[in-house]
Amino acid sequence: MHAADVLTESIGRSGSIACVGLDPRPSLLPDKLKQRALDAHGPSAEAVAAAFVEFNLAIIDAVASKCAAFKPQVACYEAYGAAGWEALVATIAACHDAGVPVIADAKRNDIGSTAAHYGEAYFDGSVGLDGARLPGLGTSWLTANGYLGSDGITPMLDAAGDGGGVFVLVKTSNPGSGELQDTAAGDATVAATMAGLVDAWGADRLGACGLSDVGAVVGATYPTEARAMRERMPNAIFLVPGYGAQGGGADDAVAGVRAAGDGIVVNSSRGIIGAWQKDGTQEWAAAAADAVDAMNADLGAALART
Amino acid sequence: MHAADVLTESIGRSGSIACVGLDPRPSLLPDKLKQRALDAHGPSAEAVAAAFVEFNLAIIDAVASKCAAFKPQVACYEAYGAAGWEALVATIAACHDAGVPVIADAKRNDIGSTAAHYGEAYFDGSVGLDGARLPGLGTSWLTANGYLGSDGITPMLDAAGDGGGVFVLVKTSNPGSGELQDTAAGDATVAATMAGLVDAWGADRLGACGLSDVGAVVGATYPTEARAMRERMPNAIFLVPGYGAQGGGADDAVAGVRAAGDGIVVNSSRGIIGAWQKDGTQEWAAAAADAVDAMNADLGAALART
Repeated sequence: MHAADVLTESIGRSGSIACVGLDPRPSLLPDKLKQRALDAHGPSAEAVAAAFVEFNLAIIDAVASKCAAFKPQVACYEAYGAAGWEALVATIAACHDAGVPVIADAKRNDIGSTAAHYGEAYFDGSVGLDGARLPGLGTSWLTANGYLGSDGITPMLDAAGDGGGVFVLVKTSNPGSGELQDTAAGDATVAATMAGLVDAWGADRLGACGLSDVGAVVGATYPTEARAMRERMPNAIFLVPGYGAQGGGADDAVAGVRAAGDGIVVNSSRGIIGAWQKDGTQEWAAAAADAVDAMNADLGAALART
Repeated sequence: MHAADVLTESIGRSGSIACVGLDPRPSLLPDKLKQRALDAHGPSAEAVAAAFVEFNLAIIDAVASKCAAFKPQVACYEAYGAAGWEALVATIAACHDAGVPVIADAKRNDIGSTAAHYGEAYFDGSVGLDGARLPGLGTSWLTANGYLGSDGITPMLDAAGDGGGVFVLVKTSNPGSGELQDTAAGDATVAATMAGLVDAWGADRLGACGLSDVGAVVGATYPTEARAMRERMPNAIFLVPGYGAQGGGADDAVAGVRAAGDGIVVNSSRGIIGAWQKDGTQEWAAAAADAVDAMNADLGAALART
């Protein structure tokens, strides 16, 4: 099934355009959970990995029916080496068991066979010593950095096959994103030039829903740019970071929506998985579910205003 | 010790500006080595990882005295998950045992605490559940993509501490690099704008050798651009891909050298580790050593012509 159709179907199933960022860090874990993992594994990467899995699986169970997608931030897992990678594998498997598409936020980039290798890791797996394919992570989407041009993106799309897609960084949500991205370039800016590439890469890759499996990362913190980017990428799904903790409001987050009311998913990470830290309990999954409900209401009202 | 001084000292030790890319792939491994790993581990990621380690360790042993640095391509390891990561750990440890600096070619990029997390994975390690730091990979250098601006690079530099550095992609060696990088921007091109950022990030970070721990990736396939980039980044070490297999000659590869004759390391991956495939034997380490000798002679002659 085409990656854009998978995401569109998931939005229909959940009635939500929310993407829940699974970005576990020791500082976001309740003490009781940390202590259990330390007791079992000692102060080790294995302890961190075990705590991440327990933390994530409870959240996935609590919010799977309320969100369109999960987005694990790969850096959080890679920071703990092989044990961290196993935690990523277990997290993604739980997302799949819950029937929710996964966007692996890895921002990978390289060229040729190396870019293909990254794609294989996240989609259908790499070839082993006997020439047979080994299991990959089986994600629906992978985030990528397009600075290297088509030589970096096309091999990932080839590795994605029929069921995978790539979100390319276009206009990111951080305060310093403009240092390069807002530089005047071509007929507008560097980000606009990247948007043109994204549109070209995805032009012939539309699903039944009319959206492409080459999407764009467009931050909630720059709504004016988001509307301009929609002109340049009419068929791209926008993955929108920066809502909530980074300062973007709901109206800003949905600024890039298409006239038909589709074409965006809005991410929140800390605002969901760290919600338990605000209410004084250590019931992280219940707090995450409440936070997703609030996010859905907030985004739904903003969509109704567009 | 400052990362630029580490690399400069290694160039002095070896009399070489060659960087050997440790980019193992099943297609680059001799049959006898693949068969041993398959016999021991069956058709699995563990078999691939075991074969990669045996392959790499023999090469490291054979060429450590002849090269300035090793550059493992992280995609080759990540493609095989946790087992692949363990092979990366073992490979980097062997480089350290041989006294040769490691450039982790990961092209990582993200913002804030997430960018710091990537840096921690490759440099000094991340914090565990009890607040104490767990071991990192301890590399000297990490490659990074600067599309997100200072918010992406500064946290990596902070994680690098006193002994680590970052090579930022500026002008890459691939045929399609110009799609974004050659677009007219600012007073020149997107790549030139990135070069200006690299120069600014590294301005106050010079080692005793006079070079910065913020370096630049500048491909051997665009020598005219390399000379222009040197003007914009007088104190940056250039990590030069594209020599050999990708078509760049020795004169092109050293085009960005400083007037003092320093400031570059030139990478070759397939040309070294795949050299055994040309001579009909399966003696991959000996063939790699001969290939590094030839590369050193080729680059030395080119440097003498500058």
